[in-house]
Amino acid sequence: MIIDIHGHYTTAPAQLGAWRDLQVAFAEGRGDAPDPASLRISDDDIRETIEANQLKLMDERGSDLTVFSPRASFMAHHIGDLGVSETWARICNDLCARVSRLYPDRFLPGAMLPQSPGAAPATSVAELRRAVEELGAVTVNLNPDPSGGKWTAPPLTDRSWYPIYEALVEYEVPAMVHVSTSCNPAFHTTGAHYLNADTTAVMQLIQGDLFRDFPELKLVIPHGGGAVPYHWGRFRGLAMALGKPELEEHLLGNVFFDTCVYHQPGIDLLTTVVPVDNILFASEMIGAVRDVDPRTGHHFDDTKRYVDATSNLTDAERARVYETNARRVYPRVDRALTSRGL
Amino acid sequence: MIIDIHGHYTTAPAQLGAWRDLQVAFAEGRGDAPDPASLRISDDDIRETIEANQLKLMDERGSDLTVFSPRASFMAHHIGDLGVSETWARICNDLCARVSRLYPDRFLPGAMLPQSPGAAPATSVAELRRAVEELGAVTVNLNPDPSGGKWTAPPLTDRSWYPIYEALVEYEVPAMVHVSTSCNPAFHTTGAHYLNADTTAVMQLIQGDLFRDFPELKLVIPHGGGAVPYHWGRFRGLAMALGKPELEEHLLGNVFFDTCVYHQPGIDLLTTVVPVDNILFASEMIGAVRDVDPRTGHHFDDTKRYVDATSNLTDAERARVYETNARRVYPRVDRALTSRGL
Repeated sequence: MIIDIHGHYTTAPAQLGAWRDLQVAFAEGRGDAPDPASLRISDDDIRETIEANQLKLMDERGSDLTVFSPRASFMAHHIGDLGVSETWARICNDLCARVSRLYPDRFLPGAMLPQSPGAAPATSVAELRRAVEELGAVTVNLNPDPSGGKWTAPPLTDRSWYPIYEALVEYEVPAMVHVSTSCNPAFHTTGAHYLNADTTAVMQLIQGDLFRDFPELKLVIPHGGGAVPYHWGRFRGLAMALGKPELEEHLLGNVFFDTCVYHQPGIDLLTTVVPVDNILFASEMIGAVRDVDPRTGHHFDDTKRYVDATSNLTDAERARVYETNARRVYPRVDRALTSRGL
Repeated sequence: MIIDIHGHYTTAPAQLGAWRDLQVAFAEGRGDAPDPASLRISDDDIRETIEANQLKLMDERGSDLTVFSPRASFMAHHIGDLGVSETWARICNDLCARVSRLYPDRFLPGAMLPQSPGAAPATSVAELRRAVEELGAVTVNLNPDPSGGKWTAPPLTDRSWYPIYEALVEYEVPAMVHVSTSCNPAFHTTGAHYLNADTTAVMQLIQGDLFRDFPELKLVIPHGGGAVPYHWGRFRGLAMALGKPELEEHLLGNVFFDTCVYHQPGIDLLTTVVPVDNILFASEMIGAVRDVDPRTGHHFDDTKRYVDATSNLTDAERARVYETNARRVYPRVDRALTSRGL
C-alpha cells in the first residue's frame, strides 16, 4: 500500500474561491462578511474536481491513499482577524472531510487551523478538536508564520504554542509544519517561503527542547525538510555548538520528513542522510510544480518514481517509506485502514 | 592551487568588538559616536589572530589563498542608520585589506557594503568604489536583507539595486549574496537565516530577468546555494511555470554556488546537480560550525575533504572547483595571481 501523507485540495470548485474573494473584501473593509451558508458546493462538484485531478493522478501513479488537507497557499492566515480565519478554516476543513466521505478508501482528511497574526495559538484548539472529533481529521497543518512572510510569531518552541501540542498529543494527531502564501515580495511562496519555513522550523526545534516537554508529539516537515538534509552536517555541528545531543536523539524520535523533493538526486540525498523510519512518502500533488520535466517525460512531482528508483532503499525499506512509517506516525490513518481490514 | 572564496575575519582582535559596542550604544541613543581613530589595532594584533586561526587551518588543510571579508554576522546593517553603517564598513574593510597586505600570498580582501534598512542601495556605491580602488577588494558581500530578518528590502531584481550592479560590472567584481545577523527570534542566524537568504535570492533571480540587463554580472550564492541544489527539480519546474528558460540558460551564466556544505552527501549532491563550472571551493572557515565531527574525527567545515572524496569529479574537474572557476569568476583574483607568476 502507498500512502501519500501530503496532498492539498488545490483544485476545489470555483465557488470556494469566489466566496473567499468576498471574505477577503470584507476583511479589507469592502462589503459585508459573506454568509457561509451562501457557499453551495454539490457532491458532484467535488467529484468532478477530484476525479479529473488528484484521483486520476493517484491511479496513474499507483498511490492508494492521500492525507488531504485544505490548499496551503489559500490558508492565508494573514488576511483579516481571528474571526475571518475561524470561518474560513471551518469551510475548508468541512470540504476536505466531504472529499474523504465521498472517497473513504482514497482520502483521509487533514485540517487547517484558524491561526491569525497575534492571536494566541490556544485560539486554534477549538477548531482542532472539531476537525478531529467531528470531521475525522488525521492531521493538522500548523503554520509557524501566520503573518505570511513577516515572521512575527515566536518560535515553535515558545510556550504559547503548547495548547496546540497538548491537544495533538491527546488525540494522537501529528502536525505538518506548513506555511501559507507569502505576502512579502522578497519571498516567492512555493520557491522560497515554503522551503525557508521548513528549514526555520527545524532550526527552532534544534535550539529548543520541545520534545522533553512533549515526548509523544510528532511533527512532519514537508518538502523534504527544506534545506535541512542537504545541510545535515551543518545542523549536526550547530546542535553540538548549542550543547544539544545528536539529531537522532534530539529530534528524530519526533520529527519526520516527507519526500516532496522533485528530482532523483534530491531523493537520493534524503534517503542517504535521514534514517528510513523518519521518511514519509508524499508528493504534494497537485501542488507547486505541475509540469512535466522535458528531460524525463514525467511530472516533476511524481515522487514515487524517485523513491522506486533510489538504490539507497531495499524493498522492505521502501515499504516503510510508503506505508508503515505513515501508519506509525499517523495512528488515525492506521486505525482507519485496520477497520477496513488493511 | 586551492582558492577558498569564502572566508570571514571572524577572529578579529577584541578591540574591534569593543569599538563596535560603543557604536551600537550610540545607535541606541546611549553615549556619543565613537571616533574611528580611537580604534587601535596593531599589525601584531592582526598577525596573532590570523596565524593562530585561519592561516593555521589553511596550512593544515592545504588551501593556498582565501578571499577574506568582514565577519558576516557583524555587518549587522540593521543597527543604526546609513552613517553608522558607513563608518563601520570602512573600519571592517580597512581591516581585511590590512590582513591581505600582511599576507599578500594568502589573503585577498573582500568588502562589506554600508547598507542600511530603507537606504537606497546607491548609497553603498561610494564605499564599493573605495574598497575596490583603494583597498584592492576582489569581491563584495551584498546583503539582500539589511533589516536583519524582517525582509523589508525589495527583491534583488528591483531596479533600486542596479547602481550596485553597474559598479560591480564596471570593476569586474562579483558579489556574494550574504545576509548578516538575524534580529528576528524566528530565525537562527547561521542555521536558518543564512540558508533561507540563499534560497530566497536564487528564487528572486529565477522570477526576474536580471541578467538580461547585466549579462556580465556575477553573483555567488554561499552555503552551497541554501536549499536550491537539493530542490533543483522544484526550481526547474517553477522556472518553467514562470515561462523562464532552463536554469542553465536563465541563471548559470551568472550564478555560482560555493562548497560550504558540511558533510559528504551534501557535496555529492551539489556536484551531481550543479555543473562543475558553477561550483567554487569554499569553507567559510572559521565560521558557523567550528567543531570536530565525532563520527569522522575531522572538522565539519573542512570541506576540502568532501571535495577530494566525491566520486562525481575527475581530478581535472576538481582543479576547476579549486582554482580555475574562481579565477574566471573573480578576475581580480586571477590578475593578482598572474602578477605573481601563478
